[in-house]
Amino acid sequence: MTAAAPPSAEVLLARAYLSRVAEPPTPGLARLVLAVGPVETAERVRRGTVPEEVAKETAARRDVDRAAEDLATAHACGARILTPEHGGWPHWAFAALDNVALGRAGPAAVRDDVERDEADSGRIADPTAACPTSAGDRPTRGDLAPPLALWVRGPGIAAQLCDQAAALVGARAATGYGLHVAGEFGAGLAAAGFTVVSGAAFGIDAAAHRGALAAGGPTIAVLACGIDRSYPAAHEALLGRIAATGLVLSEYPPGAVPARHRFLVRNRLIAALAGGTVVVEAALRSGAQRTAADAQALGRPVLAVPGAVTSGQSAGCHRLIRDGAVLVTRIEEVLEEVGRIGFHLAEEPGSLRARPTDGLGPAATLVHDALPARAARGVSWLAMESGLPLDAVRPALAELARRGLVEFGGGRWQRVVEQPP
Amino acid sequence: MTAAAPPSAEVLLARAYLSRVAEPPTPGLARLVLAVGPVETAERVRRGTVPEEVAKETAARRDVDRAAEDLATAHACGARILTPEHGGWPHWAFAALDNVALGRAGPAAVRDDVERDEADSGRIADPTAACPTSAGDRPTRGDLAPPLALWVRGPGIAAQLCDQAAALVGARAATGYGLHVAGEFGAGLAAAGFTVVSGAAFGIDAAAHRGALAAGGPTIAVLACGIDRSYPAAHEALLGRIAATGLVLSEYPPGAVPARHRFLVRNRLIAALAGGTVVVEAALRSGAQRTAADAQALGRPVLAVPGAVTSGQSAGCHRLIRDGAVLVTRIEEVLEEVGRIGFHLAEEPGSLRARPTDGLGPAATLVHDALPARAARGVSWLAMESGLPLDAVRPALAELARRGLVEFGGGRWQRVVEQPP
Repeated sequence: MTAAAPPSAEVLLARAYLSRVAEPPTPGLARLVLAVGPVETAERVRRGTVPEEVAKETAARRDVDRAAEDLATAHACGARILTPEHGGWPHWAFAALDNVALGRAGPAAVRDDVERDEADSGRIADPTAACPTSAGDRPTRGDLAPPLALWVRGPGIAAQLCDQAAALVGARAATGYGLHVAGEFGAGLAAAGFTVVSGAAFGIDAAAHRGALAAGGPTIAVLACGIDRSYPAAHEALLGRIAATGLVLSEYPPGAVPARHRFLVRNRLIAALAGGTVVVEAALRSGAQRTAADAQALGRPVLAVPGAVTSGQSAGCHRLIRDGAVLVTRIEEVLEEVGRIGFHLAEEPGSLRARPTDGLGPAATLVHDALPARAARGVSWLAMESGLPLDAVRPALAELARRGLVEFGGGRWQRVVEQPP
Repeated sequence: MTAAAPPSAEVLLARAYLSRVAEPPTPGLARLVLAVGPVETAERVRRGTVPEEVAKETAARRDVDRAAEDLATAHACGARILTPEHGGWPHWAFAALDNVALGRAGPAAVRDDVERDEADSGRIADPTAACPTSAGDRPTRGDLAPPLALWVRGPGIAAQLCDQAAALVGARAATGYGLHVAGEFGAGLAAAGFTVVSGAAFGIDAAAHRGALAAGGPTIAVLACGIDRSYPAAHEALLGRIAATGLVLSEYPPGAVPARHRFLVRNRLIAALAGGTVVVEAALRSGAQRTAADAQALGRPVLAVPGAVTSGQSAGCHRLIRDGAVLVTRIEEVLEEVGRIGFHLAEEPGSLRARPTDGLGPAATLVHDALPARAARGVSWLAMESGLPLDAVRPALAELARRGLVEFGGGRWQRVVEQPP
């Protein structure tokens, strides 16, 4: 990693405050932070001098400033805050959230917020209920707002773990068949060098994490409660094992309870952290369907595992496939679809298969693959990593630079990270 | 039915002769029959004054004329010959064979025969083996040549039974799951008024036929041997029950043995007789895959039932779905795809959803639906059948006539049958 200076205490306190002051997703706050930075945003929220959208988001809790205590609580349970100002923040993974939630353009799978307002005003159903798979299930732009901070536990570097990652999600009340497939896919992804992202729930989630751990790979559990809580309680040991080699993370401040709607909101982070989402088993109405909808809205591939048509726990998967998800039966088919996040990010809406690396020469492709997502590297390191001679690496880098894929600075080469608009 | 004059004995003898004189598929003979009729074709074949293509097809057996004996053998076992000159010949269903095999245009799913010749010359594999699902599995135009005659047993009128028909095919070594689904789908199709077309084989085929019979619906079994044989022998009783209400049929002359390659050749008839083909269970290399490829080449929908990814007997279905087949889990989803054959026939390549009946008014649609595929009906019969008052039926018929969908003759209305080009 580049030895970027760690963020100042002022920034950490501001981000910790913002993480508690509003209930995610918070598109207004995210927009304000992008415009004026976290410290100024926190100050304005405290003073109440914010745009109406942000005022609504923060009205209830803006007087609650427990930032210092939250940082201490996190520290006490072996966790820490991770902010966009840290080197390990998964910028590439979350750039899709920025683009879709805060940008102008976006795939058709996202509803505009105004549509949501209209749709919601006519709704009778409990808005916190698991979403149906109808068109109303599509998230709005605001639903996909990026987190203001993450609370993390474990040695993993999020940016690195997400460079090659796949989400494996599905039913809590999974069948033996689903648990078997989730475990196999978790192990297969780990063996292929992919990080398995899931939600640490009973059933498919747990089987996916366990499969990855059994294969010795890191895995990321995204919680819908404070990082200091083990939810479900029966998974305390599992979460401990995930945190021992990978990462447990949450956007909720310490102490936050796993309220029902937080599971749906949390799902966008699972979708965003992964290059693609595999639904292993899901009923027709389920949280996994929401993760799939979020992934689709972010322009990430949605994959689904078929099962017996007589199994209700496969009905959601079959619906997804009929609606365009890719049917996958083997880990090779998953790997075919779930590439590096950076590549997917840059895909044009409407032409999901076009990649900025299309048409690169073989050497340029190898060198580009060798470059880590967020770290700068020297030419000799790249020669070693790519297995190419030095005099092949240099023209390859020139080609990549011409294509705007890498940049040079301080004697090293680095991938160009797409900036949110 | 219209009381069309039955074909002359001369025609029947000519067709019976042609049915034995060459091994199907016989695109050359089919073309010659279209050009000069069956009697003249038979005469030219006997004399040996035929184009080279036909000479090749008929060289081995042109001196074998057992037409009269074959007609007698069929009669003795309760069967009869059915020819395009009979009113009950499934012209609409087979028009796709004519179009693709003998016409100029056709979907991309068909290889041109010259491609086949090249591909075959490089092949080492046994050409009679079950086809792989690679591009080489696509049938050539010649593979899809229409039959020269059918030998049939049972009270069913092929043209009527095929008006609404679906093929249910799959593995011989089916699992309990596959047999269950095949039985349910067979019964569901029959209950919805659809004819179930299959191949009378062990496993999925038999379960599909039995499901249809159990629901009281007619079903069609297409054999790969002579109509006087029961194959497999263990299905003699099943074939008897199919022939009691529906139709057992074969393009092979009486006495023909069920040679291995005939099962693949036979599959095109299953695909052509049905408005769509549902593969219930199939291994990666299987005859059902060939039926699916034939259906696709004929522009008919291919549907597949998913199953556990751990089941080799579902692997072929999953491959088909990944390649574009429609995943179906319930009979309603099958009915959604498998419409009346005539409608599908008229579909434009590249715009498979456009139907000649699109945009018809509600009364015209009811009247068109009420008209049998090949039979003429009077206005009062149509009023009864469609449930419409007489003064609604008349303008509906006028609308249908303007659209070229029906014609009037001898005091009755009849659907306009698409003629092969």
